Amino acid sequence: MNVIEIGKRARAASRLLARATGQARAGVLFALADHLVDASDAILEANQIDVQQGRRDGLTPAMLDRLTINPSRLAGMAADLRSLALLVDPVGEIFDETVLPNGLQVHKQRVPLGVLGVIYEARPNVTIDVAGLTIKTANVAILRGGSETINTNRVLVKQVQVALSENGLPPDAIQFVDDPDRGRVLELLQLHEYVDMLIPRGGAGLHQYCRENSRIPVITGGIGVCHLYVDETADLEAALTVIQNAKVQRPTVCNALDTVLVHQEIAFEFLAQLVKYLEKDGVIFKADPAAMEALRLSRQDVPASVSPAIEADFNTEWLSLVLGLKVVASMDEAIEHIARHSTGHSDGILTQDQEHAQQFVAEVDSAAVYVNASTRFTDGAQLGLGAEVAISTQRLHARGPMGLRELTTYKWVIHGEYHVRKG
Amino acid sequence: MNVIEIGKRARAASRLLARATGQARAGVLFALADHLVDASDAILEANQIDVQQGRRDGLTPAMLDRLTINPSRLAGMAADLRSLALLVDPVGEIFDETVLPNGLQVHKQRVPLGVLGVIYEARPNVTIDVAGLTIKTANVAILRGGSETINTNRVLVKQVQVALSENGLPPDAIQFVDDPDRGRVLELLQLHEYVDMLIPRGGAGLHQYCRENSRIPVITGGIGVCHLYVDETADLEAALTVIQNAKVQRPTVCNALDTVLVHQEIAFEFLAQLVKYLEKDGVIFKADPAAMEALRLSRQDVPASVSPAIEADFNTEWLSLVLGLKVVASMDEAIEHIARHSTGHSDGILTQDQEHAQQFVAEVDSAAVYVNASTRFTDGAQLGLGAEVAISTQRLHARGPMGLRELTTYKWVIHGEYHVRKG
Repeated sequence: MNVIEIGKRARAASRLLARATGQARAGVLFALADHLVDASDAILEANQIDVQQGRRDGLTPAMLDRLTINPSRLAGMAADLRSLALLVDPVGEIFDETVLPNGLQVHKQRVPLGVLGVIYEARPNVTIDVAGLTIKTANVAILRGGSETINTNRVLVKQVQVALSENGLPPDAIQFVDDPDRGRVLELLQLHEYVDMLIPRGGAGLHQYCRENSRIPVITGGIGVCHLYVDETADLEAALTVIQNAKVQRPTVCNALDTVLVHQEIAFEFLAQLVKYLEKDGVIFKADPAAMEALRLSRQDVPASVSPAIEADFNTEWLSLVLGLKVVASMDEAIEHIARHSTGHSDGILTQDQEHAQQFVAEVDSAAVYVNASTRFTDGAQLGLGAEVAISTQRLHARGPMGLRELTTYKWVIHGEYHVRKG
Repeated sequence: MNVIEIGKRARAASRLLARATGQARAGVLFALADHLVDASDAILEANQIDVQQGRRDGLTPAMLDRLTINPSRLAGMAADLRSLALLVDPVGEIFDETVLPNGLQVHKQRVPLGVLGVIYEARPNVTIDVAGLTIKTANVAILRGGSETINTNRVLVKQVQVALSENGLPPDAIQFVDDPDRGRVLELLQLHEYVDMLIPRGGAGLHQYCRENSRIPVITGGIGVCHLYVDETADLEAALTVIQNAKVQRPTVCNALDTVLVHQEIAFEFLAQLVKYLEKDGVIFKADPAAMEALRLSRQDVPASVSPAIEADFNTEWLSLVLGLKVVASMDEAIEHIARHSTGHSDGILTQDQEHAQQFVAEVDSAAVYVNASTRFTDGAQLGLGAEVAISTQRLHARGPMGLRELTTYKWVIHGEYHVRKG
């Protein structure tokens, strides 16, 4: 099937999904959870074909790990679908109700966004994750997974389509571009007539490609050069644990810490403690000249885990156990550094001073701004959204973790008594 | 100055605007209102140069009218700025406050969108209108007006920049691409590093050009193929006045009516009345075969103002005193017609039946859906927003009239006590 035909079918399915009850949509998720368990033999078998091909193609162990489905991961996917099904349905919610002076009754009503295009890489769990979020919010989706996982995705999408049919909903609500040719991605990016929003889930290259080639609005995000600024009033012992958590707990994700900015008044004392504290976790450090000097003075020699930073280091999303260190003369300098180097994902201050906290929050313009907490909380589940489809670092539509509500739009509904406009 | 340099300056100004008080921003609007009046001689003189050039270039009377500024229009622009200054400031508003089970305090705070790019045609009032909305919401803007109005815009933008400086704000907050070369538009569309949102204000061609060439998120809208469906239970006398208002009051705008769909039970009676009622306003009609037949039967001969519609007529935004007429066998057929032909701007039902109204509202997915009211109310001022920057017919970010709030985004603010993420 060509991509335009897929788009037409998606648009047609979209109208049916928008009319489906919340109960029917949740029913699909419960059914799908059951089918993932029932069909586990077929799923694991297809996944093994992809994994073996991946090995032959020389995928890295990390990529092979992301590609692999095992019975416990499958059970996790099913459990996630069941929790998702139980989240409050945003579709149909009425808000901003008002009666105008002329008597017109006006409100907004939350409706599905329509057709989502989702382009992702070698993680088959995204297929189920996105299908669940899409159906729960009465949207439909066109999925384009990585070619490395095509056999797994075929079987997974089939389960989704069976669950849709069983609940009286069109199987075209979740379609899969089943062609590894990359030309299909470009075709998908042109389908503005049939696709309302594009969500790339992958690295910076994929996001850039989509932004440059798409005629459909793109949600870009998921790239985080994240900062914590340690103010001179911070509780330094507590700061160590927050920085450790932000850097070490899961260094490969976008909300992991990349750079620590330290006020010069405490740099001499704190940097030596920090390096000592994180060295045992295997962290290595890229330090600016002042941080190098502070470490030299406090520890006699610079530890082997520390090397001088080059300017580009402070623009790097490390996704590994590397941490930038920089000494600043003031909070203003820290805020200025963040304005220049942050990707607008997650940045925070550690401080005991309320006024400093207030100024930092007012002036740092990132999707998530923290006072005395780890950047690792920028996550739909952690921030109480229940689920997330992406973390947006752009400014339109939604910013930060995008949950169910962010997969909807609204319409204005106006009731009158044969009202006419005067003037 | 080249467009990249303009972009850089805009980004720098954006950080200063975001920190300015609401009082300072409103102060700019009051000052600008005064300056428009004080500098009226210079403004009218520059405008005359554009108007005379426009005459030489053969602009239509309608275009020349849009281009022209006179003392009363200038006074209107000043008055609008003063009302805008007094609207409630959305910037800084805190919402979605919550305390998570782990004690993290989370809220969202409304912040400016950042840098707006606005591309428009020969209406110099847009320059002041957009400057006012932009400054009120702590955004900054890069304006690209039509070349027909370049002399007027130069003088107007100068007044804006003076008003900014006088209030301690950077004049770069409102910049003007002062070069009639159309290549500058394409350069502006590529500035995704410096521009956060693009608002084209013009015809379908401009919107399409922006969608195809922009790397910046584009707000498309302002194109309305609008419908009213006259249900078999409608109050037909009242329906005539609503249709007249929607079609005749101001036919050249996007929320004006394009097609009337009439239930077959009342078609014989109602269509003849409607044609008779609107003929005296100079409306001419494009009727589908069933409507032609109903008119023939009811009036013996088809009136001269009615001609047979071709299929393309029902996809046309008339922007003039032309009205499509179509008979439908059921409300479902009306909804189906709207789904196929509407641009998703404004569509309504006229009915006395509550259940029909409910079904219509549920199934018609346009930015504004009406029950028993004229489509002409789709307008920021009419719907209580106070002002509007555009009417969006896309689904992301904002739908329908976009007021001050729709020129903002939000950030997540998270306060902890050195919280770390577990698991």
